[in-house]
Amino acid sequence: MTIAFRVTGRAPSGMARAGELITPHGVIETPVFMPVGTQGSVKGISPEELLEMGAQMVLANTYHLYLRPGTDVVRDAGGLHAFMDWHRGILTDSGGFQVASLADLRDITDDGVRFRSHIDGSAHFLSPETAVGIQEDLGADIAMAFDECVRYPADHEYVRDAMRRTTEWARRCKAAHRRQDQALFGIVQGGVFPDLREESAKALADMDFPGYGIGGLSVGESKDLMFEALEHAVGHLPESRPRYLMGVGTPEDFVESVTRGIDMFDCVLPTRIARHGTAFTGAGRIIVRDATYARDWSPLDPECDCRVCRRYSRAYIRHLLKAGEMLGLRLVSYHNLYFLIRVMRRIRASIIDGTFEGARQEFRGLCGTRGKD
Amino acid sequence: MTIAFRVTGRAPSGMARAGELITPHGVIETPVFMPVGTQGSVKGISPEELLEMGAQMVLANTYHLYLRPGTDVVRDAGGLHAFMDWHRGILTDSGGFQVASLADLRDITDDGVRFRSHIDGSAHFLSPETAVGIQEDLGADIAMAFDECVRYPADHEYVRDAMRRTTEWARRCKAAHRRQDQALFGIVQGGVFPDLREESAKALADMDFPGYGIGGLSVGESKDLMFEALEHAVGHLPESRPRYLMGVGTPEDFVESVTRGIDMFDCVLPTRIARHGTAFTGAGRIIVRDATYARDWSPLDPECDCRVCRRYSRAYIRHLLKAGEMLGLRLVSYHNLYFLIRVMRRIRASIIDGTFEGARQEFRGLCGTRGKD
Repeated sequence: MTIAFRVTGRAPSGMARAGELITPHGVIETPVFMPVGTQGSVKGISPEELLEMGAQMVLANTYHLYLRPGTDVVRDAGGLHAFMDWHRGILTDSGGFQVASLADLRDITDDGVRFRSHIDGSAHFLSPETAVGIQEDLGADIAMAFDECVRYPADHEYVRDAMRRTTEWARRCKAAHRRQDQALFGIVQGGVFPDLREESAKALADMDFPGYGIGGLSVGESKDLMFEALEHAVGHLPESRPRYLMGVGTPEDFVESVTRGIDMFDCVLPTRIARHGTAFTGAGRIIVRDATYARDWSPLDPECDCRVCRRYSRAYIRHLLKAGEMLGLRLVSYHNLYFLIRVMRRIRASIIDGTFEGARQEFRGLCGTRGKD
Repeated sequence: MTIAFRVTGRAPSGMARAGELITPHGVIETPVFMPVGTQGSVKGISPEELLEMGAQMVLANTYHLYLRPGTDVVRDAGGLHAFMDWHRGILTDSGGFQVASLADLRDITDDGVRFRSHIDGSAHFLSPETAVGIQEDLGADIAMAFDECVRYPADHEYVRDAMRRTTEWARRCKAAHRRQDQALFGIVQGGVFPDLREESAKALADMDFPGYGIGGLSVGESKDLMFEALEHAVGHLPESRPRYLMGVGTPEDFVESVTRGIDMFDCVLPTRIARHGTAFTGAGRIIVRDATYARDWSPLDPECDCRVCRRYSRAYIRHLLKAGEMLGLRLVSYHNLYFLIRVMRRIRASIIDGTFEGARQEFRGLCGTRGKD
């Protein structure tokens, strides 16, 4: 495998750690927040801007890119890095989460998932083998095993069956995976059930993946249940491999997950809340669309040094959002992504300099709600 | 007046000229193409990007900004330059064109125009005096007199009455205008009728404005009629003042108007056609949304050196447009604006170095259709 991970610092207590993930597209400093570029574009933001704001790795989706523009187009472009003109890290999700979310448009069996496209209703089939094949064509630095993600709530038996299927699919993914310049991560499932999380993590650890996703959390369960499940998963994953908590992304979630041993995060929250006119700030979220900001000449976050906060006022951005100007979304999205990247940098620095508990206190309670789309 | 204009070069034949328009926000090199930022934002493009692409002056609209965010908000921000964080030139249209376009939502009298907001139906009144007052609050470098723009076709009597009203309104605008760091331009009307264009131009020239707009063209008439009307207007405007052909903007229109003595242009075409997935190229327009570009790895325009063409393929941009990703619009809009700015730079250079006729031949027939919204 061409991806390597080394731990370069640890918090005095807990499991928080700083590390380096060495990929074909550079060294990723962990813990890391990965902006989401579902369709090969982080909504409203250019690859140049991502680089400028310090993004190290972005996430793209197998399901979406397979359907549009089609795997062959991306492959013939020279892979997703060349297609997007983004030359830092890329991780592709396997499509398992997306096809499972199609509800009545899909049929899950041990073989794989038959589903209909949300775009045109056409029939398709994704299996562990095809999901790996597509991801090899997309050419991300990290591919994810094909998994079955179960909505919350679901009963123990249902979640157990889905988890065991995911485990078997992980085995098939590993057997099918050929590409030497790409790492394939397994995905721990098991819902909120500690015994299932443990069984899943142990089985995947036995297969020796170069890294592990923890999926199926932040899907409606309480935070207590989420962190309990997380602890039971992490406790049985190897210390030497990166751990990626999928789809989770507020500052509070970051510190609470990092302290439990998580190294990687992705979340659509920063761009999604931007579309609703909401910005992160060091004092919590603000809904900049609100009339209260009509004459507020201060930046989105007075403590932020991003390109947007250095130049534009809340009043101007509010006007753009109210007037339906695309630039409004762009500016809020840029700031929100920068904000989370900066939070993660501070978390990492605090681990290295021994002040992680301080950072944990600072970010606890900040931007408390969570999102996923 | 604080705006000055000097001619710095002339084509060997015809009336084409290069010049410098000295404004409180820098020297504008003419002929100039001004991107349109109707609501205080050029659609999808940041002020930083406008600066980077070489935009010298942008146009904003009194009607739109008066309604939203409201003149007082922009004034209290310190004017439109501060509000947008754009510190080069700004020209505001007077709102005359917009309120005249409201059709059954407006009532035009000699006093001014009563109209209803397209946003919420609320009742408003714009007169020469209020249009000037609003524009003084917006604080652009150039304000335009309040005019009545007549749709084509219209009969001679109707157009004559509207033109004479526009002339009288120009007189009232000039009397009302106080701001010393802002130039007020008169607007020549008169439809496609040479005698009316001549009467209008002469009357306005007698009032000695620091510059002149030529309005009411490119509204449906043939090019022959447009250029005939243009010639009759320009022929009676002072040589020492800049002339601005309002709402016109293809490369062919540029050269054909520049050769008739025009110095300034604005047009929504580059961003509007971008929204339809169409890009300017040196070989004519391409509809990059079309399937033919699905695997086209070349840039939008192989001869273009803009930020977009240096990095992104037609195939990627097509994918973004098809997938509804905002970035697609951004990239095409950026390129299209850059393209027209570059065309105008080449026209200007050709005037100075004596090769204008060559540029005229080059751009004749390029991107032949015209647009206005």
